Amino acid sequence: METNKNENIFQVNKEIDWQPAGPGIQRQIFGYGDQVMMVKVLFEKDAVGALHNHPHIQVSYVESGVFEVIIGGEKKTLRGGDGFYVPSNVEHGCHCLEAGVLIDVFTPQREDFLI
Amino acid sequence: METNKNENIFQVNKEIDWQPAGPGIQRQIFGYGDQVMMVKVLFEKDAVGALHNHPHIQVSYVESGVFEVIIGGEKKTLRGGDGFYVPSNVEHGCHCLEAGVLIDVFTPQREDFLI
Repeated sequence: METNKNENIFQVNKEIDWQPAGPGIQRQIFGYGDQVMMVKVLFEKDAVGALHNHPHIQVSYVESGVFEVIIGGEKKTLRGGDGFYVPSNVEHGCHCLEAGVLIDVFTPQREDFLI
Repeated sequence: METNKNENIFQVNKEIDWQPAGPGIQRQIFGYGDQVMMVKVLFEKDAVGALHNHPHIQVSYVESGVFEVIIGGEKKTLRGGDGFYVPSNVEHGCHCLEAGVLIDVFTPQREDFLI
């Protein structure tokens, strides 16, 4: 029995609130349950997702834009259609080179996003 | 220690093989480890993801196109930018109304996709 989940199985973009997530960054919470959470993150050009780490495994999709992504000290420029994978507790971050959207999925869910 | 994972932390769209996944459907395997797997699924117009279920929890993002999605008997038309969540073992499927792409994420990984 899941205790902490999105009651909506369907997520309609225009119905979901945007939350501030740092300078030039906003996010929407998509589907989630105890074990997984999907988050849409909108970046303005030059916004920076500062280096950080968390125990959650993260798998991300670049929906649009261009991002310089750093994972565990490795750096790569990714564009719409690409993706990346962040193992548990590995330091990662990104620099948005052209405005765009990341789809971040975490396992387990990011309880810290559900305040 | 993860035993079954994508050695590439960065997934570059144009470098990933497309695999047949049914009539009018192809997929690319993006980032994965034991606990999570991201898959990009390309649908032609009128392609059908037949009703099925699996123990894996699935959270999906509609990257583009229009899909009629059924989850546990509930039906909804979703467009690029929307998403959906499929609890464990709940029957689900889709009908592609306008050609597009779904980003499907499974927890745990779909070992059956790694043959």
